[in-house]
Amino acid sequence: MNTKTIATFYHAGCPVCISAEQTLLSMIDPNNYQINVVHLGEQSAEVATAKAAGIQSVPALVIDGQVLHINFGAAITDLA
Amino acid sequence: MNTKTIATFYHAGCPVCISAEQTLLSMIDPNNYQINVVHLGEQSAEVATAKAAGIQSVPALVIDGQVLHINFGAAITDLA
Repeated sequence: MNTKTIATFYHAGCPVCISAEQTLLSMIDPNNYQINVVHLGEQSAEVATAKAAGIQSVPALVIDGQVLHINFGAAITDLA
Repeated sequence: MNTKTIATFYHAGCPVCISAEQTLLSMIDPNNYQINVVHLGEQSAEVATAKAAGIQSVPALVIDGQVLHINFGAAITDLA
């Protein structure tokens, strides 16, 4: 049985992204969240999914459908 | 002995802030982080501290000296 909330971190490999990833993902409670990391620069097929989720820039964290844009690394329109 | 990392969430009571606060703070591992919340609209004396920490807009989360600006609610220059 999996009752963890899914948290997906989208990034594009930029320095801002990596820095945010390390800080954010280290602070998330692993007992309650399942963390997925998607590199949109390498997984371009995921860009459409990210856009559909409401992501406008990366890095961004999607938790339970809510989008949190973190700082500003790159506009998603630059990625695909 | 307190070995927890301090995470300070700065906000100004705006809807974007409250939404981010609820999501972010619920996902932080309470075993490793001590969470402080500062409402800059009500605690204007803290604005100088926030600016010194590098905060440019709220909501923002400062963890171990690193500033993460979340989405965009209000520019800190509008708060004091």
